[in-house]
Amino acid sequence: MDKRAYNFNAGPAALPLAVLERAQQELVEYKGIGMSIMEISHRSKEYEALNTETQELLKELMGIPDGYQILFLQGGASSQFAMIPMNFLKPGRVGSYVHTGAWAEKAYKEAKLLGHEVHIAATSEAHDFMQIPELNEIEIHPDSAYLHITSNETIGGTQFQEYPNTGNVPLIADMSSDILCRPVDVSKFAMIYAGAQKNLGPSGVTIAIIREDLLQDLPKNIPTMLRYEIHSTNNSLYNTPPVYSVYMVNLVLKWIKENGGVEAMEQTNRAKAKLIYDAIDESKGFYIGCAAPASRSLMNLTFRLASEELEKSFIKQAEAAGFVGLKGHRSVGGLRASAYNAVPMEACEALANFMRDFQQKNS
Amino acid sequence: MDKRAYNFNAGPAALPLAVLERAQQELVEYKGIGMSIMEISHRSKEYEALNTETQELLKELMGIPDGYQILFLQGGASSQFAMIPMNFLKPGRVGSYVHTGAWAEKAYKEAKLLGHEVHIAATSEAHDFMQIPELNEIEIHPDSAYLHITSNETIGGTQFQEYPNTGNVPLIADMSSDILCRPVDVSKFAMIYAGAQKNLGPSGVTIAIIREDLLQDLPKNIPTMLRYEIHSTNNSLYNTPPVYSVYMVNLVLKWIKENGGVEAMEQTNRAKAKLIYDAIDESKGFYIGCAAPASRSLMNLTFRLASEELEKSFIKQAEAAGFVGLKGHRSVGGLRASAYNAVPMEACEALANFMRDFQQKNS
Repeated sequence: MDKRAYNFNAGPAALPLAVLERAQQELVEYKGIGMSIMEISHRSKEYEALNTETQELLKELMGIPDGYQILFLQGGASSQFAMIPMNFLKPGRVGSYVHTGAWAEKAYKEAKLLGHEVHIAATSEAHDFMQIPELNEIEIHPDSAYLHITSNETIGGTQFQEYPNTGNVPLIADMSSDILCRPVDVSKFAMIYAGAQKNLGPSGVTIAIIREDLLQDLPKNIPTMLRYEIHSTNNSLYNTPPVYSVYMVNLVLKWIKENGGVEAMEQTNRAKAKLIYDAIDESKGFYIGCAAPASRSLMNLTFRLASEELEKSFIKQAEAAGFVGLKGHRSVGGLRASAYNAVPMEACEALANFMRDFQQKNS
Repeated sequence: MDKRAYNFNAGPAALPLAVLERAQQELVEYKGIGMSIMEISHRSKEYEALNTETQELLKELMGIPDGYQILFLQGGASSQFAMIPMNFLKPGRVGSYVHTGAWAEKAYKEAKLLGHEVHIAATSEAHDFMQIPELNEIEIHPDSAYLHITSNETIGGTQFQEYPNTGNVPLIADMSSDILCRPVDVSKFAMIYAGAQKNLGPSGVTIAIIREDLLQDLPKNIPTMLRYEIHSTNNSLYNTPPVYSVYMVNLVLKWIKENGGVEAMEQTNRAKAKLIYDAIDESKGFYIGCAAPASRSLMNLTFRLASEELEKSFIKQAEAAGFVGLKGHRSVGGLRASAYNAVPMEACEALANFMRDFQQKNS
């Protein structure tokens, strides 16, 4: 293939071409040191500088106030599902969860599996998880150590448009699939975490942003690698970090900064999503949006056609036209376009045109 | 710098130049698909093929018999230290450990931290961990679920030259720092694990080779991501794997195969290590080898000079001459040359020459 695919993968997902080209350029030799970034010690001054710079870039881009730690961890959001209750749920305390779909479910089920008490503060099960619960429906258990939300559900294609005010109860958000897609008031959150492989970089590193008061007085008799305190005290260098993944996150953050920051990302993301949602909404029912319009995600745009046969035909023709990753998640079927930060406007224009064209030929 | 550094880093460590150049070439576009390997779904046919091919390569190179699973995990050996007792130590069972130094200690201390019973089957503490215990000194507790050894201690620079026969007791080895440095009879082991960042690739992935009978009847109420059974059942695709690290391991394994396999690695490693150990042994006491000669590591070659001042001077001049990573581990001081598979003969020749030259100037 001579040109770039129209990459709508749900994750791992598209990376900015400029970032890939920069990474390619310096893969064999990093900053004139005669070695690749993959070959240097994590105790070297070069890696320590990269570690710090990446934290600083994220602070700047997200407007993270003082009093938060930024950790680079391994094991994906799936590991956070265990670490959060293991670290924060002391005996007698409850984990409150908003149940918005498959990822929220994995989070609270892991807490239950480990013997913790879990409270479902709100659920959109009655709506088949195709909308986000109203904020005023959320009932936080009085003994809650935290309220956990999944800010964006990649499978259903729903996204919190506003975040709940939780008062003194720490708000914890899994932002794996929408971090940095729009500005967020970090001060409302006690903790934000995200696997890198959607908006931050390649897979292999998970970012956790944790308010320092949460890091006090945590249990010490859990697996060392699952202790936030250990990673915080060691500035994410307790053991060998996933150096190359952190390096790639660094490049992606610089790319966001050079391209106008998170505000500019939001503007572009809204324009990109509008192209696809318009193609759905103007199709007179040929395309059926899955998520309730008020809960629609900027990142994962889900829709269906009248029959599975037609959907298969759509995917087949789309693949032939250079589109990748449009198949919906295997648990729900249908179609899904994941338009993360790095997916260019041009790809969304091409998809909207393809959708209109396909409709015309199949109506 | 116009040329490659003489990279003696302890880990992350040198990678073969040919591997880096290949990775560079296909970083932006993998196999003509219009995307980087970092941008594809872990459920794609391309990644599934990579996953399988990497397992097959490792099987072939190590001569892994049927009946073993190969897993790609995250969290480094440090996570294995917790996973091994959590998965294998049922109530009443004991974890036996051979204590050979800092890494062995981390392994058994993690088991103790998590409330498991630990038995020190042998220790070389009396020798300051500068030698491996005699095999006939190892006393395995009768209730042992396993005997755990650290096949190579990167800090002391010691290495098992032969492995113990443990009869019916499963033998588990942390081979993080010497996997693939020489042929090993895998059938003697119930489990071998290794963080990638020494002989396998960059950091970010840990390989576990587990005999299938060990995977039966494991506890289910431990964190999902720490369950071997989950990763085995899902062929290391339970959650998003560290795609790029696995890709790099794949390239490194191909490089080993193209360069004669593990037998050839051993030959070269012995020749490389001999260059340095000869420079030590022929120095008439100017250089003092740390490890007992019968326990010397092929991978981490540790030595001292008469004074810390002289050691500092050695490191400074070595750095100026293009050598990297020769400082001993911060916990023990002294000097250490890590000559993993990817460190070329030429680098070891240069170091041996530098050592002789430095000795001449400072005697």
